[in-house]
Amino acid sequence: MIRSELTEEQWKFKGNEELNKSSISVRGTLSLLSKHLNADDPRPVVPFGLADPSVYSSFRTSPSFVQPLVDAVNSGSFNSYPSSHGILPARTALAKYISKNLAYQLSPEQVFLTIGCSQAIEAIISVLSRPAANILLPRPSFPLYKSRADFQRLEVRHFDLIPEKGWEVDLEAIQALADHNTVAIVVINPNNPCGSVYTYHHLKQIAETARKLGVFVISDEVYAHMAFGEKPFVPMGEFGSIAPVLTLGSLSKRWSVPGWRLGWIVITDPHRTLEKHGIVESIRNYLNITPSPPTFIQAALPQILAQPSDEFFSDLLGLLRENANILYEKINEIPCFTCPNRPEGSMLAMVKLNLEQLEGVSDDLDFCNKVAKEESVLIIPGSAVGMKNWLRLSFGIERCSIEDGAARLKAFYERHARPNNPAASPLVE
Amino acid sequence: MIRSELTEEQWKFKGNEELNKSSISVRGTLSLLSKHLNADDPRPVVPFGLADPSVYSSFRTSPSFVQPLVDAVNSGSFNSYPSSHGILPARTALAKYISKNLAYQLSPEQVFLTIGCSQAIEAIISVLSRPAANILLPRPSFPLYKSRADFQRLEVRHFDLIPEKGWEVDLEAIQALADHNTVAIVVINPNNPCGSVYTYHHLKQIAETARKLGVFVISDEVYAHMAFGEKPFVPMGEFGSIAPVLTLGSLSKRWSVPGWRLGWIVITDPHRTLEKHGIVESIRNYLNITPSPPTFIQAALPQILAQPSDEFFSDLLGLLRENANILYEKINEIPCFTCPNRPEGSMLAMVKLNLEQLEGVSDDLDFCNKVAKEESVLIIPGSAVGMKNWLRLSFGIERCSIEDGAARLKAFYERHARPNNPAASPLVE
Repeated sequence: MIRSELTEEQWKFKGNEELNKSSISVRGTLSLLSKHLNADDPRPVVPFGLADPSVYSSFRTSPSFVQPLVDAVNSGSFNSYPSSHGILPARTALAKYISKNLAYQLSPEQVFLTIGCSQAIEAIISVLSRPAANILLPRPSFPLYKSRADFQRLEVRHFDLIPEKGWEVDLEAIQALADHNTVAIVVINPNNPCGSVYTYHHLKQIAETARKLGVFVISDEVYAHMAFGEKPFVPMGEFGSIAPVLTLGSLSKRWSVPGWRLGWIVITDPHRTLEKHGIVESIRNYLNITPSPPTFIQAALPQILAQPSDEFFSDLLGLLRENANILYEKINEIPCFTCPNRPEGSMLAMVKLNLEQLEGVSDDLDFCNKVAKEESVLIIPGSAVGMKNWLRLSFGIERCSIEDGAARLKAFYERHARPNNPAASPLVE
Repeated sequence: MIRSELTEEQWKFKGNEELNKSSISVRGTLSLLSKHLNADDPRPVVPFGLADPSVYSSFRTSPSFVQPLVDAVNSGSFNSYPSSHGILPARTALAKYISKNLAYQLSPEQVFLTIGCSQAIEAIISVLSRPAANILLPRPSFPLYKSRADFQRLEVRHFDLIPEKGWEVDLEAIQALADHNTVAIVVINPNNPCGSVYTYHHLKQIAETARKLGVFVISDEVYAHMAFGEKPFVPMGEFGSIAPVLTLGSLSKRWSVPGWRLGWIVITDPHRTLEKHGIVESIRNYLNITPSPPTFIQAALPQILAQPSDEFFSDLLGLLRENANILYEKINEIPCFTCPNRPEGSMLAMVKLNLEQLEGVSDDLDFCNKVAKEESVLIIPGSAVGMKNWLRLSFGIERCSIEDGAARLKAFYERHARPNNPAASPLVE
């Protein structure tokens, strides 16, 4: 023991400070917020923080998706290492599945399986990381893009999503930000965290902007087809002949199995520009030096995609539509919040925090810490997704939780309302 | 179409050349070698390239390990996102399992679940990557260490494993290589790719060397307990109070399920030096921004570890022992090969290629390309694992394949034997 103490100062290794600074994540943020929860509060926690409804019985995945996985595990035929890019039957099935919504046919060589959409993000950020290159990210966004880019020292430039325009991309900002070192634009549709769905016209404008700038589009479609408002979901790959598109997706949301960790990168680029410019080769090489999804999940994919699933999908959208409406209406009844747009897709919404209506709350993080402590409500602060003094709320939770959560937020507001604001006083109501 | 052709030159993105250079992997090497296979050869391919016997019936995993996984999938309780570091019951069970062979008890906080041992390697290399730092790797080694370090620009320095000393670590070389920027030494035991098993004494010497240098030990124990010679397997964590040890492992080899992709990082460091110096915090942060193993596999782990498995494990070792002996003897009968040590662990052996006995074969890669083409035998060239003009052979294949492969290698030798070497001429035999 003494021996160790003697040399404690002599150990030469230390933690990675840059990594510690860059590793902002939804999970990490929630884990920090959870420390503020009051263990003596008998009420259940309201989990507005996480877009993962799979745990609730109303959102449970279909047994018809589970059976192929059980069969694959039981078969004993899929215990060996997977190939780096996904086994051929899985890539073939996925190419066919994605092609159904495109004007051109994909081949299995244009499909790569990943460990959820997270690894797809990790792979493409890794491929693009080289000195001086920069990538354009939406603000707000899914934090993993920036965390991985910061960690890999890929410069990030942010363009705004405009709440007044239904969270559309600020196309002028993109043109002002881009320079000769810009390589790609990230678009998330249906949008995380804004709950918006982009029109055919807007997506085409984005592709045209990318073409003008000579960059490609990374289209995060983890919420593909999860549009429950008036606008249909349009895959960005539709515009792949205007500008090359890399489409990212996963089973997580639509099949309600985020814990299965199966995602993909699809080269939706009919002119094969990404291949000609070496991006596809680099994706292949990156996937050779990072783990692949378990073999049995890959093996189950063709059967999962072949299941009749229209009813499951439409029930899921129905639940999300109702939840979105309840959240939107209840939240907008509380003076310290403004949700500018009724969500039309995904399972997330951005809500503005009207700090001038509150007393003793300094910013979004302070608000989230306090509602965790006082009301056992977990909400991701907007600053974790790039928008200070906003909040990110998931409506992918049980309806009774949304109602309960809204009531607790209202109670919080009433306790913390700024007294010189007449609208805020419960006595006036 | 014309529109695209017009601007083909204007796209500004390109592949990542540094990544393309650094991404050497066993899978990538095998994929290149496979292109040399002769499709007209009716014989089955002899797969000396891959240490993955799980596909063969004699090495098939036990149904008692499969059932907990099936139960976890069927339960419907594990479809949601996992926590970043592994779910608590899994970490608790693993801490208990690893502690059985240590003189101290691990807590769940000292255990992190990863997507196979590959992601454990990826995580620790990522944590250590900072400007000027360097890491000491064995030569030969598992190529992922160098690939990930090159990709993350962590400087690699190689120390030799000495064939004449049963592939022990060259301790003097380590001391000569290390400087004030050295952070860690990687040790693989039982050894991949040499098939050696280190004694208690040698492991203690390594720990003492690490202590002297002020660095920690990364102990790759993916083949933990897979020692079938005279030396027992000793976990490096045993010496964690001499120098801090990070132990990496997985279900892949001992449970014969590499495709399940469940691995771990264990902090075997009773003085908590890695924690005090920020390494543990950085591991936690890295795992927050990279995917985690599927939730249901994590959920199955406690039951898998609790199964009575002594018979399965000892049968597996028995098969490997016999295979190792057959390979060692057959290979040493062929003049163009020397296998200096009878393998005692893992499922890999290093074999020296005696090029002076062959005509028209320029080096190890040329040899591997030619045996792939002429004999449908796949072997990883030593240069892919750091030792030019050696070969890496797996004996984790069916016994009949080893015998068949050895016969084909002998036939290859006889066709390519240098004629002025009397020992090589079939006429003399």
